[in-house]
Amino acid sequence: MKRVAILGSTGSIGRQALDVIARHPERFEVVGLAAGRNVELLADQIARFRPRVVSAGDSAGATELAVRLDAAGLRIHGSLFGKDRDVERIAHGADGLHAVACESGAEIVLAATDGAVAFDAVFAAVDRGIDIALANKELIVAAGELLVEHARRSGANLLPVDSEHSAIFQCLAGAPRDRVAAIVLTASGGPFWERRREEMADATVADALAHPTWQMGVKNTIDSATLMNKGLEVIEASKLFGLPGGQVHVLVHRTSVAHGFVVFTDGNVVGQLASPDMRLPIGYALAYPDRLTDRRFTDPLAAVGGETGAAATTLSFQRPDLERFPCLRLAYDALALGGTAPAVVSAANEVAVNAFVAGDLRFGHIAACIETTLNRVGSTKLSLEAVRDADRAARDAASTFVAERTEGTSKRA
Amino acid sequence: MKRVAILGSTGSIGRQALDVIARHPERFEVVGLAAGRNVELLADQIARFRPRVVSAGDSAGATELAVRLDAAGLRIHGSLFGKDRDVERIAHGADGLHAVACESGAEIVLAATDGAVAFDAVFAAVDRGIDIALANKELIVAAGELLVEHARRSGANLLPVDSEHSAIFQCLAGAPRDRVAAIVLTASGGPFWERRREEMADATVADALAHPTWQMGVKNTIDSATLMNKGLEVIEASKLFGLPGGQVHVLVHRTSVAHGFVVFTDGNVVGQLASPDMRLPIGYALAYPDRLTDRRFTDPLAAVGGETGAAATTLSFQRPDLERFPCLRLAYDALALGGTAPAVVSAANEVAVNAFVAGDLRFGHIAACIETTLNRVGSTKLSLEAVRDADRAARDAASTFVAERTEGTSKRA
Repeated sequence: MKRVAILGSTGSIGRQALDVIARHPERFEVVGLAAGRNVELLADQIARFRPRVVSAGDSAGATELAVRLDAAGLRIHGSLFGKDRDVERIAHGADGLHAVACESGAEIVLAATDGAVAFDAVFAAVDRGIDIALANKELIVAAGELLVEHARRSGANLLPVDSEHSAIFQCLAGAPRDRVAAIVLTASGGPFWERRREEMADATVADALAHPTWQMGVKNTIDSATLMNKGLEVIEASKLFGLPGGQVHVLVHRTSVAHGFVVFTDGNVVGQLASPDMRLPIGYALAYPDRLTDRRFTDPLAAVGGETGAAATTLSFQRPDLERFPCLRLAYDALALGGTAPAVVSAANEVAVNAFVAGDLRFGHIAACIETTLNRVGSTKLSLEAVRDADRAARDAASTFVAERTEGTSKRA
Repeated sequence: MKRVAILGSTGSIGRQALDVIARHPERFEVVGLAAGRNVELLADQIARFRPRVVSAGDSAGATELAVRLDAAGLRIHGSLFGKDRDVERIAHGADGLHAVACESGAEIVLAATDGAVAFDAVFAAVDRGIDIALANKELIVAAGELLVEHARRSGANLLPVDSEHSAIFQCLAGAPRDRVAAIVLTASGGPFWERRREEMADATVADALAHPTWQMGVKNTIDSATLMNKGLEVIEASKLFGLPGGQVHVLVHRTSVAHGFVVFTDGNVVGQLASPDMRLPIGYALAYPDRLTDRRFTDPLAAVGGETGAAATTLSFQRPDLERFPCLRLAYDALALGGTAPAVVSAANEVAVNAFVAGDLRFGHIAACIETTLNRVGSTKLSLEAVRDADRAARDAASTFVAERTEGTSKRA
């Protein structure tokens, strides 16, 4: 039984992870769950999986959670040595995330919160040698190399949950980095892959949410329309696998069957394929170094993306177009700048996407917002503190950009 | 410096291996070379690579080799402790193969002879814990599970040189067999993939030699036309990787870019791609567990089979047709029968192909020859001796089948 804690259990990744765990009760024990505002779902998850340590977003949430658990008949103990099947501790906020990650007895922590909220808890767990299943993109983008360095020192495994990075991790199979000539991440191309740039400029939120293959949250889906999701993944891959941007490539592959390739220095290429279902990389990360065995996938054509019963199938790959998708180019620029530049790009993008969804920024101005912010804020030497400062400065600068545009639009209107 | 010995150095695989070694003089030292009749080329190879122990096919060849090396100014010593750069021993026949494999100081032996001639030498090397780069198909088909068992006991690595098996080996990366749901070998489909069965029945040798992607010897190319090459590879894969025939699949992939896939029990699929150039799997096997680094393959589209400068590429996969290609079905039948049945199929196929090339058998009767032989000879429990007996019996039975057909043809003519 592997003891698992989840930071962000009520989000999309957290819920799918619990789905994987529920299918393998003989393999996993949930010892910690942390969530933010969705206390109702968190209480349901606790009632089902009986973790020792739980955490809500704030003290009001923790109080509500205690009431709900009491109503559900789950005794709560004041110490960590309570009865086996009862919740032992309800915490909240930063301390709660720390407790779930580090004091629940977890062997692996799934870091599935958004943003920077769990940075400290994840670093603390890594420093204790606890394995991390990494789904917190901002953490890898902003501070991936610090995390890798901490993990190297403590011996913790960092297991990527993103399908593309899971692919690269599986293809590398521990091969040394100096035997890797390049890696390739695939991109679905998103809903606007076939559109001309001028057609994209005033795309609506509804347009951008029509993703061809993956079911994702709003932010991720808009990022998929700008290809910034792939840009951020290029940054993540560079940091997780210790490769410069020049060795991290992107190919557009519309059907999302192949997720990544490693090109070795001897000319051999190893790639990974799987159904576009996040439970596969989640299950891989949680079970690592073992693999789960609940289903049987033996149809050879299905393995390479074919339909059941079909006679043939095809995998297509295209080079991406950095002119139509400037966000991807900006990610490479940030990688080349180094330091806190990736954190700036990530924060500016978040502000820009939120403004787009709120109707305050044209789709075609998302890249301009990020580029202007990167130019204004620049890059400083990397540290966790510098990342926080850069994040703040980038949000301010990006918000200013949006405000100027909104004002401009109003004036023109 | 890794010390390499080659059994079959003048054949296609042997020559390409020396080509790989010549490009990496800092990595490899050739300590033994054995060949059959091509003494002239063997002498040239010896002059260039200066192995300690060499072997010709027979005593006349060894004498001719001594004369040639003498003429080339290469001193020959009677003991194994001679001057570093001189040939120390010229042997021949079975003893010579044994000396090159086991007494040359080799850390890895490339088994690249055809047929059964090197079986004893390879087993002797395996029993001494010497790694084997395996290109001797008959050896794996007939006695693969024995070889695997010997290697398991001695700790020798068995490194497949065939591109498809190298692919599977690379994709497995040491994963335990009970985490493998299935493996997929790709097949080019050969020159007759698009033909109807009745069009194939009287195909000529010239037709069959027009292979779409790989440059190979005559025997291998005819086998590619019947898909028996893939049948034998299914048998090899089953034996090398310890998987039953039901877990070893074939997909036709005309461009020979992807060579094999491993379908893991958790639904993740890992595949290998490479240019159709035998020097890649040869170099991988010789350098294992390291990888060579002479070239830089960093173009992402080229990694998935694209042309340099192209914007897109496509990989296509089709299910094979066992009705039109009965040889592939016969290989699965032999696997299911087990014991010496694969050796019988391999030997019968060799006789049938030789007869086809000699004009004594119709293309459409190759499968019938193999099937009749398998029915007549049957299968016995596996041992090296049983394999030899089965080989002989199969050759006799297949020759009888051919003679009956030839007679029949003459009578009809």
